[in-house]
Amino acid sequence: MANPDTHSILQDLDRLIAERRSADPEASYVAGLLRDGPARISRKLGEEAVESVIAGLQESDEALVGEIADLWFHSLVLLATRGLSSEQVLAVLADRFGLSGLEEKRRRQEPGSA
Amino acid sequence: MANPDTHSILQDLDRLIAERRSADPEASYVAGLLRDGPARISRKLGEEAVESVIAGLQESDEALVGEIADLWFHSLVLLATRGLSSEQVLAVLADRFGLSGLEEKRRRQEPGSA
Amino acid sequence: MANPDTHSILQDLDRLIAERRSADPEASYVAGLLRDGPARISRKLGEEAVESVIAGLQESDEALVGEIADLWFHSLVLLATRGLSSEQVLAVLADRFGLSGLEEKRRRQEPGSA
Amino acid sequence: MANPDTHSILQDLDRLIAERRSADPEASYVAGLLRDGPARISRKLGEEAVESVIAGLQESDEALVGEIADLWFHSLVLLATRGLSSEQVLAVLADRFGLSGLEEKRRRQEPGSA
Repeated sequence: MANPDTHSILQDLDRLIAERRSADPEASYVAGLLRDGPARISRKLGEEAVESVIAGLQESDEALVGEIADLWFHSLVLLATRGLSSEQVLAVLADRFGLSGLEEKRRRQEPGSA
Repeated sequence: MANPDTHSILQDLDRLIAERRSADPEASYVAGLLRDGPARISRKLGEEAVESVIAGLQESDEALVGEIADLWFHSLVLLATRGLSSEQVLAVLADRFGLSGLEEKRRRQEPGSA
Repeated sequence: MANPDTHSILQDLDRLIAERRSADPEASYVAGLLRDGPARISRKLGEEAVESVIAGLQESDEALVGEIADLWFHSLVLLATRGLSSEQVLAVLADRFGLSGLEEKRRRQEPGSA
Repeated sequence: MANPDTHSILQDLDRLIAERRSADPEASYVAGLLRDGPARISRKLGEEAVESVIAGLQESDEALVGEIADLWFHSLVLLATRGLSSEQVLAVLADRFGLSGLEEKRRRQEPGSA
């Protein structure tokens, strides 16, 4: 079972990326990406997607998880170029699938209702 | 500031995808993807990545957020084909960036330490 | 050995695509792509690339050849949106690899020199 | 107008790639790719496709042509891992579009018939 504390990891990453915006692009990978702009970050996102596809077809679980982590991380950096974050993505997903933390809490209390 | 309840959305999605495993593939998009297997899901992941790249370069914020949501969702479905979930991805990200819910909590309590 | 006549196939395709520019977008797939513009065609190119990657990893020779054919075809359509064609691509490849039809002819006549 | 001699460039490349199969992987890029195998080559193909998509959306004609050249070249290397070549791809394209060198020749002799 996931530790509830892990759920703030995406927010931590959003914050870390926002902080790196003012870091030295030579010293920080994220600052370098942000300086190079959306085209460079999009290219990295595309490359990580290709690696995720290949990992999904023929690599180990560990390799696949690592590629998806790279893919999500570069997604967050791309969003950050516009001042967006994981929050908006999760909100869209919650909307689409009729999810919400509140609903979920209720479901946990009334396990028969799922 | 994000509602803390939204952070369980990825877990909700993991659970929803796991539940759809036993649904009718004709009636459920996720069940259909899971039946078709990793190659089909990987292809969808790749397609969503291409759309994210294009949205990142020239579409609205709303369109970009929507494409990243699709990308993450299909990532979760691909992980689910192997019994994996967002939990492993977030654990890798936390490790890589030295993040953890516990560390984060401390940082919130001691704001000068970040 | 390839029939020398097949080598004009890319030129034929360039011409066919150029001709479709004035066709009815409802009746012609190429005219529809050209009307929809570079973003739609780029997306198709990206999708065909994902399918080529998957075919390269785990599908039959016939499937791989078919995907590469789709990939090249959509490359030509993308080039056509700018008035470009296979000719410029082949010229770049010839330059990069020090190839030319003339050189090749010489090599055929002096087989020991390759 | 394209020099007819340029049409053998794909065949030249097929031959060059086949010859590099026995070259030193440390000294030859193609030999290195062939040694690393289909997964590595597929990844490169995917990366070139992402760059082609980006170039198609926002880069110069020269950049786009260069990316498509990379994409086609890596397509040929991927085909070569199975003993396939441009010949099969062009044959599929010719079939799909009802093209043939012979038909084309006729059309050249009867220019009004196109």
